[in-house]
Order: sequence, then structure tokens, then C-alpha cells
Amino acid sequence: MKKASIISVGNELLGGQIVNTNAAYLGRQLLSMGIPTVSCYTVGDEVDLIVETLSWAAGQADIVLVTGGLGPTDDDVTRQGLAKFMGVELEFRSELLRQISEFFTGRDLKMAEKNKIQAYIPAGARALANNLGTAPGIMAEYGGKIFVCLPGVPSEMKEMFAESIVEKLGQSGEGQVVVIIRKLHCFGTGESVIAEKLGDLMRRGRNPVINCTVSGGVITLHIVATAKDKSGADEMIEKDRSELREILGDLVYGEDEQTLAEVVGAKLRERKETLAVAESCTGGLIGKLLTDVPGSSDYFTCGWVTYSNEAKVRELGVDKGLIEKHGAVSEEAACAMAKGAREKAGTDFGIGVTGIAGPGGGSKQKPIGLVYIVVDAVGQRDVQRYIFSHLREHIRLRASLAALNMLRLRLQI
Amino acid sequence: MKKASIISVGNELLGGQIVNTNAAYLGRQLLSMGIPTVSCYTVGDEVDLIVETLSWAAGQADIVLVTGGLGPTDDDVTRQGLAKFMGVELEFRSELLRQISEFFTGRDLKMAEKNKIQAYIPAGARALANNLGTAPGIMAEYGGKIFVCLPGVPSEMKEMFAESIVEKLGQSGEGQVVVIIRKLHCFGTGESVIAEKLGDLMRRGRNPVINCTVSGGVITLHIVATAKDKSGADEMIEKDRSELREILGDLVYGEDEQTLAEVVGAKLRERKETLAVAESCTGGLIGKLLTDVPGSSDYFTCGWVTYSNEAKVRELGVDKGLIEKHGAVSEEAACAMAKGAREKAGTDFGIGVTGIAGPGGGSKQKPIGLVYIVVDAVGQRDVQRYIFSHLREHIRLRASLAALNMLRLRLQI
Repeated sequence: MKKASIISVGNELLGGQIVNTNAAYLGRQLLSMGIPTVSCYTVGDEVDLIVETLSWAAGQADIVLVTGGLGPTDDDVTRQGLAKFMGVELEFRSELLRQISEFFTGRDLKMAEKNKIQAYIPAGARALANNLGTAPGIMAEYGGKIFVCLPGVPSEMKEMFAESIVEKLGQSGEGQVVVIIRKLHCFGTGESVIAEKLGDLMRRGRNPVINCTVSGGVITLHIVATAKDKSGADEMIEKDRSELREILGDLVYGEDEQTLAEVVGAKLRERKETLAVAESCTGGLIGKLLTDVPGSSDYFTCGWVTYSNEAKVRELGVDKGLIEKHGAVSEEAACAMAKGAREKAGTDFGIGVTGIAGPGGGSKQKPIGLVYIVVDAVGQRDVQRYIFSHLREHIRLRASLAALNMLRLRLQI
Repeated sequence: MKKASIISVGNELLGGQIVNTNAAYLGRQLLSMGIPTVSCYTVGDEVDLIVETLSWAAGQADIVLVTGGLGPTDDDVTRQGLAKFMGVELEFRSELLRQISEFFTGRDLKMAEKNKIQAYIPAGARALANNLGTAPGIMAEYGGKIFVCLPGVPSEMKEMFAESIVEKLGQSGEGQVVVIIRKLHCFGTGESVIAEKLGDLMRRGRNPVINCTVSGGVITLHIVATAKDKSGADEMIEKDRSELREILGDLVYGEDEQTLAEVVGAKLRERKETLAVAESCTGGLIGKLLTDVPGSSDYFTCGWVTYSNEAKVRELGVDKGLIEKHGAVSEEAACAMAKGAREKAGTDFGIGVTGIAGPGGGSKQKPIGLVYIVVDAVGQRDVQRYIFSHLREHIRLRASLAALNMLRLRLQI
């Protein structure tokens, strides 16, 4: 199986002034073409470091993709690094200089002297057209491996990859294998519980391999199937997908790019039911998540961010005495908020959320992270008390997703 | 000069299912401590690859930071990799198991059998406390170099880095050069306008160097000063900071980690004034941004997400005839929403936002991206009509930030 390695060049990446999104993009694209990435490197703008890294990468992979360092300034030395690695000189290409000059004249700009260096590429290499900028890409074969240099600017890199590389690499991927990835998103338990439930299915070396990532309480299982052709991979994915869904039951809320808010919204639309939300500690985040979804006005009509006690009383009809007796962070307050929202908006469901997001305001009885969530409907009320960990941001996100998940489970009945 | 290398472990990083933000974060932190990062590596979840990469990194740097692969599942093999690299066995630490069990019992949860592996670290290494999760970190010295393993979950990684690593590494950075970075955040114009205003100040090779990044309409200038000591760097930063602020005026809303919502909130608190928000197309995002800030209950009392027309009429007293005549996306509706929110909540300011976030619902007269924003106070009303470009997510974020920025400019008067 052909493998790839990715090298990102740039001091600004090492210093963290820029997050490296290029490597992730290329990793995804290559994987979808059946070419797994086995390593990524980030190096500074120095010729000898680039040479050393090229040799490491070539030792691990058949295809080495390099991004960055093709610009016109003195700190751009990727072309010099590749030439030195290949043991050749840089060669002037008059047709490249013409293309670069045209880029400027087409924009009524004068080409700077500095840009001339971009017309040089290693002897024996092929230039790749840049439709969006001045830096041509470079493709070369050396020692039986393929080397591709792409610009560091993400839009230019993506365009060049799609235009000049996909087809070429598609051929090297051809006849080898197809890799298909499907994601299953779970909510409502921890990573280790899911790993225990899946047991041997998650062992390394299995095909499909099942990877697990966690973000904001959402646990995502990535089923990565490798097969000779698409139908083979599809079949393997389908088999695992059913088995995982069987084992995990209603812990799984969706697949691939689906969000909890989307799944809940689709169910509400299907049932022709509506929702109102009364938020305190989540401060509008549940409304934001619901309305991230286009067309959410079909089922979401109104939300309140009753941040002060007065607002809870005035807007949602929460009893003042109730807050005095039990506090604004209490099961009683959450129930009254959910009911108040539902009745006032005239919807089928009302969600009420109140809690302590921190960093201040916690006590022994009511610690930071304590959140009450209520899903209220005529004749039925679901109530949960949670203690979420981590920081304010996480507590708020977890509480918002937990509220949507409670409604999801309610809608499945 | 002491140097660092960063290794990120995880198949999901190689496959691009996750963008590697950890390496950028650590690169920034290390640079601010005077420790440049010379290389970053990403490797898959395999013991022998981790061992090989550790030896490359140790060949280039004095301090090797590893993130990821400390979880409880079978694909988490960083601890095994470090032990094999050091030529030692994994050692069970009963105090770690106790801490991990306590993490679960403190949350009324049962610890899974799988979590026990997290109580093992290489013989001779030191465990680092994880205040936010179950995976302890690891610190070890080997061959005169320092090795640090941190969790892959960004929040846990950051917390552990700040709590356990900064002080230790701060000592190793001492006496070298000092790099200080200060950020200025601007809102209300484009990147090229700012670049033109700054001119020669932004040239490469200058010290401090000024880099520019853009995110969600916020333009951030990074002033990066390098000097022999802290006071020298501080002086350079201070000079540039004043000059940039002088040139950019009220385009600059804040510095370093300040958000627009924080700046607006601090001003409201200082003036002892209060705010209510009526949102339509932003769906709760303004409330979310305001309440991201701890203590925002001091000035933010109530928000409405009046997503349906009925909710605008019923909750905010928007005239039904006005909506019929001008539409829900109109200057008139935004004014009525802002005034309704302010009067109903009894606050000093009311914000009203209505627009078309897309992807559907646009027309020639009212295109996707059209947003009306109003900041209402007794005797003064600021009204803006915007047409934001890009996708739904971007339009909603831009509209929310523009609303906060209008209030910021209002509060400076």
C-alpha cells in the first residue's frame, strides 16, 4: 500500500502564530484516495533542516507532500531544500517567469524583483500551475519516491492539490485500495465505557479499524475500512455500523456530519412538534446550537435567557417564593422555567436549564458544574441533575448538549 | 539556547479528522518563555513509531513535549512508547489509581476496568496531576533531556501545562533571549486597510515583527519582540503598542486574550449600566458571547431569541402591523425589538438584531447576509444595516460581533 508523509515548512507554524490546518486537509484528502498518511513534520525555514526532514519522510513513505516556503522572500527556502536533497541545482524556467509577470500585470501591479526567485525549480522537476497566487508548485521523482511542494496559503494549496495532484496521485492510489470512513456520534456516557462495550472491536490492526475521539462530551467512533474496491469497503463499513449501533443502542445519536441539534430538529419536524427554551447558565448557547441548523424556525419559536432572578420571575412566571426557598439553581426552578417557556410560547416542549458555570458562585451544597435540566411536555416531565467538570466553557457546552440529548431520548419514545 | 520539540500522537491527526491545535498552543507558550520550538512531529498510535520519533526529537531539542495517547483505550500507547524509548518497564502507582478512582466517585460514576492502565507510568518518571480528567501526565529525564507527556484533550493539556510545566521549564529558559508577544485586536475594517495604515511597520525582518491574523471579522496584530532581557522586550513592545494604537484609534478594541464581549462588559460594569438583548437571526449567539464572560450577570439581565414573528410581537411588543408592512427583517423591526427588550427588562441598553442568515430565505431586495442591528438607549438609537458575506455560520458570528462592537463604540462616547 502506498503511503504518504506531510512536511509543513514555516517558523510561524513552530511558534504557533498559525495553526496548521494544511496537514489535516491533506491527511483527509489522501485518506479518501486510499493513501494513508504515516507521519507529519513541521520544520523551520532552514535548508538543511528541510533536507534532513525530506530524508526521514522518504524513509517512511512513497509520496512526500511539502507545504510552505515557496514565497518570494528570503525566508522561503523549500525549493533550495528540495534541490539540495535531490543533489541538483535550481534551474531558471522562463515560462514560469512569464506566468508570474502576467499575474501582476493582470492586476495592474508591478512585479517586485524578489518574485523572480519563484521562476526557479530543481533541475528535472516539473512546475505546477498556481491559479490563485505567484508561487508555482513543484513535483519531482527521486529515488523511486514522489515529492510534491505546494504553497503554504491554504486556498492556493487546496486549489493546486485539486487541480494538479489528485489525478496524478489517484493513479498511484489506483488498483491499490479504497479507504472509507464513517463516523458514529455518541452522547451520554464516557469514552472508557464505550471502549469496554466495544471490547475487541477496537483492537489495533483490525480492519476496519475503529478510532475514538472526544469533543465536548460527544464521543465519535471513526470506522475506517480499507478494501480493494468501494463496494468491499462499503460492505465492511455497513457490517460494523450495524454491529456498533446494536451494541451502543440509543447512545448513538447520529452519523458523519450530523449534530445533536440537527437530529433533534429533524425529529421535531417529522412529528410536527415545537420547542421553546429557557436558559440561565447556558446563556443562549442552546438557542445558538438549535439555530445553527438552517430551517430551525420550523420547530424552534422562542428562547429566553433569563440570567437574573427577576427575569425568571417576570418573563417565565417562576414563583418568587420558590426561588427564595430553593434558590435559582434548583430542580424546582428548572421545572418552573421549562414549564413557563412551554406555556408562554405555546409549544409542545419546553427546556429549562439552570446551573453554576463558575468560576465563582460554587458552594459545598451547590458546587461549580451543578446543572439542573428539565424537558417539559403536557403530562410528562424529564428531570436530570448533573455535575459537569472542567471549565466554564465546557460546563456550558456539556449542559447544552445534555439538554438536547434529553429531548432526543424523549422524542424516541 | 534551550530548544523544544513537540510530538503529537494520534491516527485521527494523521487522517485529518482533527486539526492539531495543541502543537500551535505549545509553540506559542514555549516561545513566550524564550524556548524556541525547532520541530513538530505527528505520529500514529504505534509504540515503535513513537520510540523512533522520540529519538529524532531528542536529537534536535533539549525538551520534548508529547501530547495525546494517554487515554484508557487500547490505541493509547504513549506511555508504552516512552517506557520503551527509556528502556524501562511501566510501573504501577497506587496513588494514581486512587486519584483516578476519586475522579469517578466524585462524579457518582463507576470507574471502568480500562482506566486502570492510566495508573501506570515508566519506572523513574514523575506523574503530573490532571485536574480535569483521568489521564495523568508524565515527566521524565533521560540522556540529559526532559520528556513531558500531556493529554491530547486541549483543555486538559493546557491546564496541565500551566500547572505543572511552566515553572519547571521557565527555569531552563532563563538567561537566554526573551521573546514577548502582545496582541492587539481590531474590529470594523478589513485586513488590507489595516496593512495600508501600518505600512512599513509590517515589513519582514523588523524587530518587533508584526504579524496579522484574521478570524470571524476580528483582525489581530501580533507584536513579536525579541531582546536580551525582559525589560528590553517590554520596552520595544510598549513603543509599538502605543504607535499602533495611535494609528488605528478606535479600531482597536482590546489586547491579548480580551474578547469584545469582555471589553463591552467591563465598560458596562464600570458605568453601572445594564443590557438586554433581542435576537432573531443570531439565535442566542450574542447572549452566549456575553455570558462566556464570568460575572456577566452584573450587567446582562435578560435575552430573548424571538425566532418566530409571533414571539417578536408577544414577547417584545413589536407591532404586528409593522412586521406586515416592513417585514421581520427590517430597520423598523430591529428598532422595535431593541426598544422592547430594553423597556421590558428595564435596562439602560437594548440590542436588537434581525437578518437573513441563509442558506434559504434571500431575495433580491433582502439578500442572504442582510442584517439590521440596533443599539437602543433612552434618547439615542444607533442603527446599522450590514450585508455580510460567506456562510450561515459566518454571517451569524459577524452579526453578533458587529452588535457588540456598536455597543462598544456607543459606550466610549
